[in-house]
Amino acid sequence: MKIGILSSGGDCPGINATIRGVGKTAITHYGMEVVGIHGGFSGLLNKDTEVLDEHSLSGILNLGGTILGTSREKGFREMLTSVDQEKSQCILQAYQELGLDCLVCIGGNGTQKTTNLLSEHGLNVIGLPKTIDNDIWGTEITFGFDTAVNIATEAIDRLHSTASSHRRVMLVEVMGHKAGWIALYAGMAGGADVILVPELGFNPEVVNEAIRERARKGKQHSIVVVAEGVKLPDKRKATDFLMKEIEEATGIETRKTVLGYIQRGGNPSPFDRNLATQLGGYATELIANRQFGQMVCVKDGAISSIPLAEVAGKLKLVTPEHNLIIQGKRMGISFGV
Amino acid sequence: MKIGILSSGGDCPGINATIRGVGKTAITHYGMEVVGIHGGFSGLLNKDTEVLDEHSLSGILNLGGTILGTSREKGFREMLTSVDQEKSQCILQAYQELGLDCLVCIGGNGTQKTTNLLSEHGLNVIGLPKTIDNDIWGTEITFGFDTAVNIATEAIDRLHSTASSHRRVMLVEVMGHKAGWIALYAGMAGGADVILVPELGFNPEVVNEAIRERARKGKQHSIVVVAEGVKLPDKRKATDFLMKEIEEATGIETRKTVLGYIQRGGNPSPFDRNLATQLGGYATELIANRQFGQMVCVKDGAISSIPLAEVAGKLKLVTPEHNLIIQGKRMGISFGV
Amino acid sequence: MKIGILSSGGDCPGINATIRGVGKTAITHYGMEVVGIHGGFSGLLNKDTEVLDEHSLSGILNLGGTILGTSREKGFREMLTSVDQEKSQCILQAYQELGLDCLVCIGGNGTQKTTNLLSEHGLNVIGLPKTIDNDIWGTEITFGFDTAVNIATEAIDRLHSTASSHRRVMLVEVMGHKAGWIALYAGMAGGADVILVPELGFNPEVVNEAIRERARKGKQHSIVVVAEGVKLPDKRKATDFLMKEIEEATGIETRKTVLGYIQRGGNPSPFDRNLATQLGGYATELIANRQFGQMVCVKDGAISSIPLAEVAGKLKLVTPEHNLIIQGKRMGISFGV
Amino acid sequence: MKIGILSSGGDCPGINATIRGVGKTAITHYGMEVVGIHGGFSGLLNKDTEVLDEHSLSGILNLGGTILGTSREKGFREMLTSVDQEKSQCILQAYQELGLDCLVCIGGNGTQKTTNLLSEHGLNVIGLPKTIDNDIWGTEITFGFDTAVNIATEAIDRLHSTASSHRRVMLVEVMGHKAGWIALYAGMAGGADVILVPELGFNPEVVNEAIRERARKGKQHSIVVVAEGVKLPDKRKATDFLMKEIEEATGIETRKTVLGYIQRGGNPSPFDRNLATQLGGYATELIANRQFGQMVCVKDGAISSIPLAEVAGKLKLVTPEHNLIIQGKRMGISFGV
Repeated sequence: MKIGILSSGGDCPGINATIRGVGKTAITHYGMEVVGIHGGFSGLLNKDTEVLDEHSLSGILNLGGTILGTSREKGFREMLTSVDQEKSQCILQAYQELGLDCLVCIGGNGTQKTTNLLSEHGLNVIGLPKTIDNDIWGTEITFGFDTAVNIATEAIDRLHSTASSHRRVMLVEVMGHKAGWIALYAGMAGGADVILVPELGFNPEVVNEAIRERARKGKQHSIVVVAEGVKLPDKRKATDFLMKEIEEATGIETRKTVLGYIQRGGNPSPFDRNLATQLGGYATELIANRQFGQMVCVKDGAISSIPLAEVAGKLKLVTPEHNLIIQGKRMGISFGV
Repeated sequence: MKIGILSSGGDCPGINATIRGVGKTAITHYGMEVVGIHGGFSGLLNKDTEVLDEHSLSGILNLGGTILGTSREKGFREMLTSVDQEKSQCILQAYQELGLDCLVCIGGNGTQKTTNLLSEHGLNVIGLPKTIDNDIWGTEITFGFDTAVNIATEAIDRLHSTASSHRRVMLVEVMGHKAGWIALYAGMAGGADVILVPELGFNPEVVNEAIRERARKGKQHSIVVVAEGVKLPDKRKATDFLMKEIEEATGIETRKTVLGYIQRGGNPSPFDRNLATQLGGYATELIANRQFGQMVCVKDGAISSIPLAEVAGKLKLVTPEHNLIIQGKRMGISFGV
Repeated sequence: MKIGILSSGGDCPGINATIRGVGKTAITHYGMEVVGIHGGFSGLLNKDTEVLDEHSLSGILNLGGTILGTSREKGFREMLTSVDQEKSQCILQAYQELGLDCLVCIGGNGTQKTTNLLSEHGLNVIGLPKTIDNDIWGTEITFGFDTAVNIATEAIDRLHSTASSHRRVMLVEVMGHKAGWIALYAGMAGGADVILVPELGFNPEVVNEAIRERARKGKQHSIVVVAEGVKLPDKRKATDFLMKEIEEATGIETRKTVLGYIQRGGNPSPFDRNLATQLGGYATELIANRQFGQMVCVKDGAISSIPLAEVAGKLKLVTPEHNLIIQGKRMGISFGV
Repeated sequence: MKIGILSSGGDCPGINATIRGVGKTAITHYGMEVVGIHGGFSGLLNKDTEVLDEHSLSGILNLGGTILGTSREKGFREMLTSVDQEKSQCILQAYQELGLDCLVCIGGNGTQKTTNLLSEHGLNVIGLPKTIDNDIWGTEITFGFDTAVNIATEAIDRLHSTASSHRRVMLVEVMGHKAGWIALYAGMAGGADVILVPELGFNPEVVNEAIRERARKGKQHSIVVVAEGVKLPDKRKATDFLMKEIEEATGIETRKTVLGYIQRGGNPSPFDRNLATQLGGYATELIANRQFGQMVCVKDGAISSIPLAEVAGKLKLVTPEHNLIIQGKRMGISFGV
């Protein structure tokens, strides 16, 4: 069998570990041929590929980024849903011309959607869940998330010393447009006093009161972790608003830090490397068993798979019943509501 | 209610996070009193305690070690099993004099055994599973393990550059007397070529051949990760034997590194902080519900509990069917058998 | 003798190591009494102090922040320069009432200025140069700088993977209002392609051309490091302007990251710990020798001192002749001019 | 001009940064040709080389190990000093056949000696000082040292928590056969209580007394840092002896950790990257100016050079007058004598 593999969407630690997991298993155990496709789905169209062998898969386990490159996939997805059937025909043709028996797509929510469309068009595909945001429906965890939480927590650790030396409120904006997973996990691990996630929204007065309450107990400094997707009613990002709001309402100097892209890059954590390796290996096993149209996932703590059709178009969000939220509340951490 | 808390056995990252999880939940949510017991079980006998309040539980989430100190518990356990009933009577008396409604014991396998004995003697107890070795029966994971794997993997990452620059075999001994969890997880995450765990034993010729096979493919350097509990038939540790054996059998210069105590100390990883916090919080919930005689655990990826009587005296070991071993083999990694 | 010690101005890794260096040397070697003053110069006025002994100086060597707290000093300095002599009289009185033989002031440029004013008012003072910005005149290096460069470089390392995976320009804004030391050192250590410092200014067309030149050689991705003090002619910060400018001029997607406060906090690097320890010890030696009115400094790589009067009001800036700039240019790195 | 470059001796973080510094400066600024020689001096004899261009020098700045490989040089040096002149003739011939105008040798003390011999045989050579041990005569610092100190200090930081939780003495053996630089710098930065370096020797009773003195003050735990080169009178390594000796003499449980090879590998620190870059760039400048027979060095904090003939055969050792020792003693740290 000959399998193609590509990575699509934003950068995420562990993509290379996944590629290695798929590729080494395919070559060593199943004797398959493996082709790397450059620059995401556009590389499929352009048939911009390279043969992946033991040599090219060596030494990449702990490497950040992706050796295959990546790109946005919006245009590609539109081709697949276009009424003009010639467009989607191009894609099927490229797949056939490359002589692929299966296409493995590493990506986030958008990619799983696109991969499902490819499946509906009759291609043999497997999806692999990649995102630092941990918001892919159908899997308990995605690779990249643990690394992003590590980076964000390390940053929060650093801000504690400045907060307490200056008796300040330090506001930290972490990644997470729709889902607050990074904010929740890094906030709890970093000992934040207030954690705001998009799913719960927030009441400024609740935030202010949490900070005032600490001040009354003699702690002038507080750490507030905010997911970037937390918004005001008028859709503006909450961070800048909160900086002024808290300073005015509490009288305590407030400063913000936006962590940004450093959460996406760099070497994957050991946890993510092992997760990515196992997800990749399982993808190959599915291919060997000709179980196509699946996304590899984690279920009840074990590697498993789920039909792409069930995943496509959904998001896994933080709920108020999440154990970390319940536990956080019991310890006096405010979630802003 | 008034609860006592102690830590026993070897150092492990996350003990303080657990103490904080128990204590803050008890104080803030349940309005309990919390007493910290110094130096493990011997502090119980000596009634060497301190009141834990919000202030003493603050700022310890990411601190290594234990603010309560620890000690070996062998002598204490012998008191509990002694035919001389006066000895165990001392312990019950100390518990009563401290006015405790429950005793929370943070420790490894030995501690769970002792805690179960205390339960059998009629004390209200809760066990919390602490060990970098991840070998406590009844829980999928223990806090401290993720941090130890991080430290060991970082060390293996460093050794790669020396191995390849010098075209050497680098042997790395990691912790794990009876269980090879650290070797397995850090070995896989560190891209080891050979991983030896006590549970599987090893055949030197298989190890040598794995290294020779790499050399034939042009890779003179190899990384061999060995758990400290891997033994020769005559019970000697395998590491020194292997160093000479590999060098002689393959003709490739071989060097060893023993990671030792650095795997036990230092700040817990964010993963371990969140795990410890949740385990600690759940312990308090069990106490509030008067569900004593339990060890808090992780089951199917969720926080749960298990009767101490089921845990005591057992070990959770690596099996040949573990997914990381199966996956490793498929990628050409040797497990020495 | 009885010495007072305070920290003033922004947070900086190594303050505690310096306090420990001063204090332990004073107590152990010289048998002096040491008093810590809380919250910077305002604590002097309020006589808000604590006795520092071996116990309180223990375990703080690698701790970020400052155990003494800090504050802005502008108001205090104005008291010293006020025509109303009663105001400065307050300060002298507080110093006398505390029974101090010398006041050790740990701080940046502003603090050295204030300390010099105190000296002119007849107080026995020693200045200790603290700033992540490395811009204090009269010393080759300040503690905190090495740690800040480490943090900024680690962030740049992470951005490389995203830059190359996405074929993007990544813009990184690092600290440095007037001086570009962090940008220069972290930019060079992080393998930046363009480095902009306030001292040299920049020509957008030179920046664009450097990026285009890389693209012509097949490297679509580039890393641009910009000190926060780099400004447009109209005094706006350059970062946002550059993001749009580069994207428009080169057609390459451009993203920015502002590192912010994470550069200030957290544990000092070993280099900074040793530097801080030695600077602190030398301060105590100067006091023992009654050589007051000095700032401790590094000169020709050795610990030394310089009169505060020579330091006050000056800034140490990057010059075009700095060896890292000359060396960078020779390797093809652009400095934007 | 055409220059050859090789790395020899033990692994050390920053070799690749140095190769990049030499190569990029040579190619970009001076228009020279650059040839990389594989596996140290033996690669010179075998003419095992590759052309280094911008592409091969890219992305290696922060990479541990050496892209050129390395080897021991003892055999090669013997060829140069052999009475059989044919042997040294081979070397000159290889140099000429490769068409080199200069050979740049990156290595430790042994390499500088060999490089000087090559110079005496009429070759144009430049030496670059590489060693984590910092013991090369003629330069204030070598690249690799800062990184090794960082790794060792991080390990000592970790051991503190175990030491204090268990009330133990933790003994840490760090690298340094003849010179105690790593022990001194990492010991001071890690807050060690006792630091032993080969240059000073040690008196066991002084060590024991330092630990007893701490115990009398209520600190049962101590950290003892020992360079591997610290020996007993009978030439055995001191570490194992001390472990038993301290335990017996003080009654405090004592454990050892041998850091070993992890101090040599992995990514160079930003400090080492910038140092290596500048040393490499200066080497190229010397070549352009035809100033051969020199080793690049750091003098009074600035990049400079020194004749290889002055360096060869000497060692830079720790002296009792070193400021860190004097400062350490004043703070109550014991140096075992």
